[in-house]
Amino acid sequence: METPVGPPPSPFLVFEAINAYHRTAAIKAAIELQVFTAIDNGRRSAAEIAAACGAAERGVRIICDNLVVYGLLTKDGTQYGLTATAKTFLSGNSPAYMGGAIQFLLSPTIMLGFDRMTEAVRRGGTAIPESGTLAPEHNVWVDFARAMAPMMMMPAQQLAETVLKVKPGPIAVLDIAAGHGLYGLAVCKANPASRLTALDWANVLEVATENAAKIGLADRFTTIAGSAFDAPLGGPYDVILLPNFLHHFDPPTCVALAKRLKSALNPDGVVATMEFVPNDDRVSPPGAATFSLVMLASTPSGDAYTFKEYEQMFADAGYSSSELHRFEGAPHAVVLTRP
Amino acid sequence: METPVGPPPSPFLVFEAINAYHRTAAIKAAIELQVFTAIDNGRRSAAEIAAACGAAERGVRIICDNLVVYGLLTKDGTQYGLTATAKTFLSGNSPAYMGGAIQFLLSPTIMLGFDRMTEAVRRGGTAIPESGTLAPEHNVWVDFARAMAPMMMMPAQQLAETVLKVKPGPIAVLDIAAGHGLYGLAVCKANPASRLTALDWANVLEVATENAAKIGLADRFTTIAGSAFDAPLGGPYDVILLPNFLHHFDPPTCVALAKRLKSALNPDGVVATMEFVPNDDRVSPPGAATFSLVMLASTPSGDAYTFKEYEQMFADAGYSSSELHRFEGAPHAVVLTRP
Repeated sequence: METPVGPPPSPFLVFEAINAYHRTAAIKAAIELQVFTAIDNGRRSAAEIAAACGAAERGVRIICDNLVVYGLLTKDGTQYGLTATAKTFLSGNSPAYMGGAIQFLLSPTIMLGFDRMTEAVRRGGTAIPESGTLAPEHNVWVDFARAMAPMMMMPAQQLAETVLKVKPGPIAVLDIAAGHGLYGLAVCKANPASRLTALDWANVLEVATENAAKIGLADRFTTIAGSAFDAPLGGPYDVILLPNFLHHFDPPTCVALAKRLKSALNPDGVVATMEFVPNDDRVSPPGAATFSLVMLASTPSGDAYTFKEYEQMFADAGYSSSELHRFEGAPHAVVLTRP
Repeated sequence: METPVGPPPSPFLVFEAINAYHRTAAIKAAIELQVFTAIDNGRRSAAEIAAACGAAERGVRIICDNLVVYGLLTKDGTQYGLTATAKTFLSGNSPAYMGGAIQFLLSPTIMLGFDRMTEAVRRGGTAIPESGTLAPEHNVWVDFARAMAPMMMMPAQQLAETVLKVKPGPIAVLDIAAGHGLYGLAVCKANPASRLTALDWANVLEVATENAAKIGLADRFTTIAGSAFDAPLGGPYDVILLPNFLHHFDPPTCVALAKRLKSALNPDGVVATMEFVPNDDRVSPPGAATFSLVMLASTPSGDAYTFKEYEQMFADAGYSSSELHRFEGAPHAVVLTRP
């Protein structure tokens, strides 16, 4: 008897995969029209929500029914409600609101990369012109820095806790490709004896500088404008942060950068790499494994590297040891590496 | 103590919904590059598949890893395999291959409708110019007729069985907006004593006529070119099929059409409406409920109507009774209505 290899064939699974973009369109429209905020403000029927959002009742009813199916809204009779996820992350009233992330995740540059996926698979790298999102001073990284900050709160906090455990004293921290700056700022906030240097393109550093001032850390914050590959790094540092940066490059480029950073690192310092790190099978956990597609769509040779691959890259750059820290239910992980 | 209303808040659920279009891009690229066919032909490693598809190994490895996460491929070490769904519906070697459906489901017209979803919610109807996909002789329906036929095999068979049970004898069948013609042709094939008249735009009827010849039913097949709303219908008919047609229109338009069809229907005849029919809550089952979004994106006032709504429309058009037939695990259903 043959052992069945999985569920029986379903045309609807194919239909669902092809039509997956419908879900993107639905949540984008609901965010843009502030449907979640209207519901949080007590509008519950399609007519009430429509009035609050300046939309048509029929349009609101259909979009809300779809959001119920996707697990973002609830429905009781004709009354819609927010799930815990929508209340926390999609209502404009919430301090953890992350609706603005569509400015980056659905930016024309990123979407063009996915629109040209077939060509990207043929080439083995992005089909967006001029190295995709890696072009110098690309404005998509300003969008990223502004839009993605709320989505980074939890991982930034987890990175800060991980670093604090191994480096609790007075430390100098370098945040590579700081973006919104929140990773470094979280480390800096968790450790009042730390000083932070944020490196990124000048246009992006404006956002990090704003955030440092907002959090009240301006007096422990300096910046280096330029590329991580050739700007003078200063130092030496006790901690160098590499949050969501190495995934953009091929392994030789990562090794070259790691070597460069080693020269700016104290002998008892540590490099903290925050990344989407799939298991060795490259197909789990889902959130980390599927990140490889984003790199294929938008970079010439980036990837979602496994821990073994990061360990090897740092070893090739002359570091002595790496260790992996995962966080329950999260797609990201931290690799701590010592020189 | 408060009762929790669902799972705890998850930023990753939001991330997943916003990025849902990544899945569309992945399956589209794999279909276009015939990755599934290559695997079915025994290419198993990324390098072998890449060579067969004229693509880069890195691109193929990343796309295949993502398809494993989506449940369309399997992975054992570095060897990819097809799930039952992929083998049946996505390998070009399969008679049930439905990869061509992307020509319709991802056509520029349909995707434009979803790209303008926010405006569609504001208006309460499609933001595609000229009535969206309902413009006379719109070529998207030729794409539909050619591309969607394989996806219609199972529902067409189920419609044929439902009709055969209530109308087993020599019957005259009218297939409204026949498209690929497969619904009427399935009924006609199941009942050798039947004759079929297919109505659609002239450009679309070419596809139905081709299909009738392929199946060997040309001698029991005639056509009426034009709109269901004003072409002379001939008749009287014993069975009038309305497969996936009424969802494009608002209820008054459906009622007017139903009245018109009644005049072409024998007194003991039956109208068989095949549709996505959500439950009264409009949020289940998922496949039927989410179809409303397709109508919002692409039509001025179409919808996924409930059985109660269809029953009411036919009652308003002077029919005596309607009954609902569902099929295990399928998003579509058949409403049988008697004059």
